[in-house]
Amino acid sequence: MTRRVFVGGIVTSKGISELQVIEHGILGVDANGIIAFVEDLGKREIDAAAYLQKRGWVQDTEVVQLEDGSFVCPGFIDTHTANTGRGMQLQLLDWLEELTFPEESKFQDVAYAKAMYASAVDRYLRSGTTTACIYATLHLEATKALADICHARGFRAFVGRCQMDRNAPPTCVETNANESCEHTVQLIHHCQALAGDEEAPLVQPILTPRFAISCSSELLAGIGELAKAYPDLLLQTHICENEREIETTRDLFPERSSYADVYDHYGLLNERMILAHAIHLSDAEIHLLLERQCGLSHCPTSNMNLNSGLFRLMDLAKRGIKIGLGSDISGGYAVGMLPVLREASTITRVLAMQDPAQKPATLEALYFFATLGGAQVCGLEKRVGMLAPGYEFDALVVHTRSRANEAPVNPSLFVHEQEPLASLFEKWLFCGDDRNIATVFVRGRLVSGAVPRRA
Amino acid sequence: MTRRVFVGGIVTSKGISELQVIEHGILGVDANGIIAFVEDLGKREIDAAAYLQKRGWVQDTEVVQLEDGSFVCPGFIDTHTANTGRGMQLQLLDWLEELTFPEESKFQDVAYAKAMYASAVDRYLRSGTTTACIYATLHLEATKALADICHARGFRAFVGRCQMDRNAPPTCVETNANESCEHTVQLIHHCQALAGDEEAPLVQPILTPRFAISCSSELLAGIGELAKAYPDLLLQTHICENEREIETTRDLFPERSSYADVYDHYGLLNERMILAHAIHLSDAEIHLLLERQCGLSHCPTSNMNLNSGLFRLMDLAKRGIKIGLGSDISGGYAVGMLPVLREASTITRVLAMQDPAQKPATLEALYFFATLGGAQVCGLEKRVGMLAPGYEFDALVVHTRSRANEAPVNPSLFVHEQEPLASLFEKWLFCGDDRNIATVFVRGRLVSGAVPRRA
Repeated sequence: MTRRVFVGGIVTSKGISELQVIEHGILGVDANGIIAFVEDLGKREIDAAAYLQKRGWVQDTEVVQLEDGSFVCPGFIDTHTANTGRGMQLQLLDWLEELTFPEESKFQDVAYAKAMYASAVDRYLRSGTTTACIYATLHLEATKALADICHARGFRAFVGRCQMDRNAPPTCVETNANESCEHTVQLIHHCQALAGDEEAPLVQPILTPRFAISCSSELLAGIGELAKAYPDLLLQTHICENEREIETTRDLFPERSSYADVYDHYGLLNERMILAHAIHLSDAEIHLLLERQCGLSHCPTSNMNLNSGLFRLMDLAKRGIKIGLGSDISGGYAVGMLPVLREASTITRVLAMQDPAQKPATLEALYFFATLGGAQVCGLEKRVGMLAPGYEFDALVVHTRSRANEAPVNPSLFVHEQEPLASLFEKWLFCGDDRNIATVFVRGRLVSGAVPRRA
Repeated sequence: MTRRVFVGGIVTSKGISELQVIEHGILGVDANGIIAFVEDLGKREIDAAAYLQKRGWVQDTEVVQLEDGSFVCPGFIDTHTANTGRGMQLQLLDWLEELTFPEESKFQDVAYAKAMYASAVDRYLRSGTTTACIYATLHLEATKALADICHARGFRAFVGRCQMDRNAPPTCVETNANESCEHTVQLIHHCQALAGDEEAPLVQPILTPRFAISCSSELLAGIGELAKAYPDLLLQTHICENEREIETTRDLFPERSSYADVYDHYGLLNERMILAHAIHLSDAEIHLLLERQCGLSHCPTSNMNLNSGLFRLMDLAKRGIKIGLGSDISGGYAVGMLPVLREASTITRVLAMQDPAQKPATLEALYFFATLGGAQVCGLEKRVGMLAPGYEFDALVVHTRSRANEAPVNPSLFVHEQEPLASLFEKWLFCGDDRNIATVFVRGRLVSGAVPRRA
């Protein structure tokens, strides 16, 4: 790759209450896709050419002059997702039974799976998601195909083969816990082969017991062994999404003190674990998750869609738990993190209306959860989620303004002449959509859209 | 206009719990834009040509064959809207002060107003809104210009000149109640002249006291007189949106028993009144509004954005109050009713999670509020909001499927081969956007998009 420099608006989260907004900045990406510098040119009172000259970035350097109303910002991190679905009338367990399991069983057909996954990865990228933690199905070949597709498209993805050996229709369960773990090892080897000698491959396997209800003790123990055997792999599963699910789990594991304790008992809770939903955690469970340094994936569109409950986002963040956002397609209804971030906002507002001790999530916090917070959950917070020197360039170019005499690209996003960047950014988060995302990069590579016209 | 016939999917609300879904139907629109027939061809087991032959609709008839995955449905009715804004951190009164009033004062400049309104009307139509109740500003010339734009574009609109004579910055108040009413009469005459001898003009003025806080007793009394003098005109205002607003109203009108009673006292509550928000109504107020047969405009995106509260949609509908949805741009953040309908769904789900006596709004109910319910609020329920013989053809052609080998038009809407129409419709409501709206008609006239290719 050639080096690439962006001159114009730059927006990045720097933490849960810090958003950096540079009206006129310069950002350089080296030939390895790593950010070399981010500077506020307005503050330095020098122009881009002089700055690049001084740094020696003149040859083999493509300079992208961002138009007025455009900016670069980190890509979104989706910490919990699968494939598209529907079913707003149902609650979790019925929804699994009636809609999800029948759809999943189709992934037995590798050709079907390939078509679905290729479309899904394309739609994630177009929507500005640069990293995703994905639940595939139990099918080994289909899941390998998903890893291949992510690899080919340059999508940063944690690809999980969903392990489950009970409480689902015959086409959706594995009959043998050992064989299930063996298949997961094969997926791990497949991903290792894909990565070749790359030190930090974009596509990684992730250990994925579906949830306690659909895993026998033997299977959970087996996955616990895998977690020990592969100490670099992330893990993901579901917890405390829905009251009936919690009761059923309690009935299945009467000897364990809580839902979280089931996972802990089998060695699944550590700083690499991503727990989705976590709406109805008890205080003891919160303590345990804090102690084990687990991360949470908050899936607001799904939680509302399936009537699961209200996640106490700001409260749990304040207690120090790592939290990212998840689209939870198919429990949620939208690909891309903008609708998810908006629904997360709504839920914190509802909680704050009803309890003065709770605070609505600020814009800074919402964008943090959708980027850097997600990176923390995935153990990537030193690599992505922020635009800063040394970080990998997983980023979007966003256009908020249409060219003169053009209709606005989307009818809800309407910006004025010379509107400050902070305001454009806010409007995009709340009124924008994927149409405003002109370009998507993962580790400096163009993965969707086109590089804006050059200076 | 020539007669136009649509052959293919047809979806329409028929009531709060009834959605009519015709997989393969035929709908005819006569030369006046009135629906002549809607039939389920699947049930009748005859083909479209034979049906048209039998009806004598052969000459001067354009037949539009809807593609697989496409359907016609009623346009959206937005019962409360103004112009675009932002300001998620604020509550109502601060938001008015800091963001809304400064923006409104710019409409003194008629050229600015024309540009803003032309863009807004275009964006409403593109988003599938075929009828809107609009709060303009207090500026007579700008408001006339809005009426002209709606008339020229064929938008069905109730255009309100916002009357207010106190408690706002000097550029945002009128200094004389009589003169304020005189200006409104001039707007009425302007709209009458626009309509010419049309019996039921698309563009109508609507009496619009901003809200009790910004209207003196004299002004409210004057508007009450206008309501008597023009017994065909609708009225619109705000009520019980926010607790500080309610307290302030109580302080300003200590002699009145409630916020609703203020309006009632001045002769403003009747079956033509549309009250926006109505979140914190007392039981006595609900009784009064029922007695007066007022309609409500529920604005969920605005209510969440400004932290106003949770409107009890299904509860109030059950009690028999007419209810429509409103985007409340600028309190809300999105043009078009799809995001509004989704937020309305979320709020009913929150209420149902917390109180088993409450029920989440069904899909049938949500679409009803966005179409026929809104028509009831506007007194248009015999004319629009439904696809049925005798109704005016205010309608959309929606595409959910992309043509072969094309990327989906929006990344969140992903449909399968041969998916039933009911499922396509559900996915569009929850995952679709304006990109799926290919064509928009008001009273049979094409107002946005293009008529699908002909058979």
